Amino acid sequence: MPELRKDPVVGRWVIISVERGKRPSDFASPSHKRRVSGFCPFCPGNEYTTPQEIMAIRPEGSDNPSEWSLRVVPNKFPALQIDGELTKVGEGIFDKMSGVGAHEVIIETPDHLSSLSTISRKDMENVLWAYYSRLTDLKKDPRLKYVLIFKNEGEAAGASLEHTHSQLIALPIVPKLVREELNSARHYYDMKERCIFCDIINQELQEEKRIVCENEHYVAIAPYAPRAPFETWILPKKHESHYRPLENGGFSYLAEVLQRVLKQMDKLLDVPPYNYILHTSPFNSEENEYYHWHIEIMPKLTKIAGFEWGSGFYINPTPPEEAARYMREVEI
Amino acid sequence: MPELRKDPVVGRWVIISVERGKRPSDFASPSHKRRVSGFCPFCPGNEYTTPQEIMAIRPEGSDNPSEWSLRVVPNKFPALQIDGELTKVGEGIFDKMSGVGAHEVIIETPDHLSSLSTISRKDMENVLWAYYSRLTDLKKDPRLKYVLIFKNEGEAAGASLEHTHSQLIALPIVPKLVREELNSARHYYDMKERCIFCDIINQELQEEKRIVCENEHYVAIAPYAPRAPFETWILPKKHESHYRPLENGGFSYLAEVLQRVLKQMDKLLDVPPYNYILHTSPFNSEENEYYHWHIEIMPKLTKIAGFEWGSGFYINPTPPEEAARYMREVEI
Repeated sequence: MPELRKDPVVGRWVIISVERGKRPSDFASPSHKRRVSGFCPFCPGNEYTTPQEIMAIRPEGSDNPSEWSLRVVPNKFPALQIDGELTKVGEGIFDKMSGVGAHEVIIETPDHLSSLSTISRKDMENVLWAYYSRLTDLKKDPRLKYVLIFKNEGEAAGASLEHTHSQLIALPIVPKLVREELNSARHYYDMKERCIFCDIINQELQEEKRIVCENEHYVAIAPYAPRAPFETWILPKKHESHYRPLENGGFSYLAEVLQRVLKQMDKLLDVPPYNYILHTSPFNSEENEYYHWHIEIMPKLTKIAGFEWGSGFYINPTPPEEAARYMREVEI
Repeated sequence: MPELRKDPVVGRWVIISVERGKRPSDFASPSHKRRVSGFCPFCPGNEYTTPQEIMAIRPEGSDNPSEWSLRVVPNKFPALQIDGELTKVGEGIFDKMSGVGAHEVIIETPDHLSSLSTISRKDMENVLWAYYSRLTDLKKDPRLKYVLIFKNEGEAAGASLEHTHSQLIALPIVPKLVREELNSARHYYDMKERCIFCDIINQELQEEKRIVCENEHYVAIAPYAPRAPFETWILPKKHESHYRPLENGGFSYLAEVLQRVLKQMDKLLDVPPYNYILHTSPFNSEENEYYHWHIEIMPKLTKIAGFEWGSGFYINPTPPEEAARYMREVEI
């Protein structure tokens, strides 16, 4: 008998079809190993083809524009524009506003053939620092309410350029899904005086069956009601509402867990395409007791079709307990 | 400057990137024209390969099992199972229930190479009658709360078999997205004493710029805040909460508009893959004043990636006013 499971935070139901119980090798994953391809605007030497650089990490004292280990540039085809006034208007029953915001690209390494699972630990830390730095900077713009940081890895997951990169979109409103998650977490806090994510982490650490890996400060779990096979969340063990570095340790512990999860996925699922998303509290909220930032990683192994579109339900052929066990058993 | 638009019913925002303003020919649609392929379990003669038939339309008096114009059968790999008790249990902080429900396939024509846009009007009417008949039948099962009827056309839209078919999944709960839509429509009704969809239809018929086509009883529009380029909704012009035939006319008027839209899409977008979903009131609600059933059709032309996953926002490069104009101008 299949099982219906509910995500305790957003109330999303998923169908875990235990009978079909797919193993890692059952997925015909469109592996996205990189090839040396033609011209790449993100490769060193081609800096002139991107819009004006926003930030970069370069060796101290270097004035060579092509010598960098990370760059952040505006998206050449931005979904939203940074210049302009934020205007809100009605059109009869409808509502619209001007598309003010930011759309940036974080080029994670100069090496065209690398991925987040193969770059050095130091480079991974730099990527996580760059996210933090951009969040802190964009927070100053009073027109913006939320910054969504995400990564599309592989064409099947929506990446249009092969060279590894993340993106951020800064928005003049808090998006619906983020608002729902926040409201729900606040509601739980009002009832219990506890953070729902802290409660989840406690239960997971006690039961152990959905733990993927952990270190002193972070834990990676297969969530109880995952939308996708091998979906994995990384959370700080100690309560923290906003994405930020550890006071002692910066992003080194997070880099370790994130790279470990990505390497496990690569080995287990033959370099699958994936998306990850940073979930953090909005700008306008101070530190709070109810929301707990985290990263959600979803390998792209199944198709989203009419049923998911119409219901918000997901059908997942791999129970998270099995997914976590497979992930734990991978030797990397 | 791009535009942010809000769907008045569910509050979903979309980014209409007017600058990129994609025309129909700009989409590299993975055309899904059908080929004569190998063995097909949905073709006449192979009835023995599907689970036991639930209903069929056959010529009067025929006892030839391979002579039919439509068949409904259980899905061979069902997401939910019809036999069993509906049990609900907690697991610490988490909730689950048994996967009781139904998962059926509507085989729309015996002809392997046909599609909904090429079958006869009569066959199209039969498909719409079959939906109605299954809804009416499944309503009798007290364990079930909602039936989602949907179609995945083409592999890119999630179809795993080429032979044209729709699906239905009957669920023991009203899915989140449906509940949100209902709640929102009810809220609007409480404020205004009017159905929000009726208000939308009135505004659209008056402004005319997002009308795709219409007949006496139904109208097809490009919604104000479409998730996908060329997204089209078909609604009854007169208020109706539950999907059902016209008292005089059955499903012939609906079949006409639906086939017209699908033919327009085929011609304009080179036989694109698409999903459509029937949105109707749940079983447990009697006829009501606030909800208005309709069909939402979404051609699959763009990729859903990290940004959409994380925000519930959609980026749409084709304004609905342009999409509707292109659709209106197609000669079929």
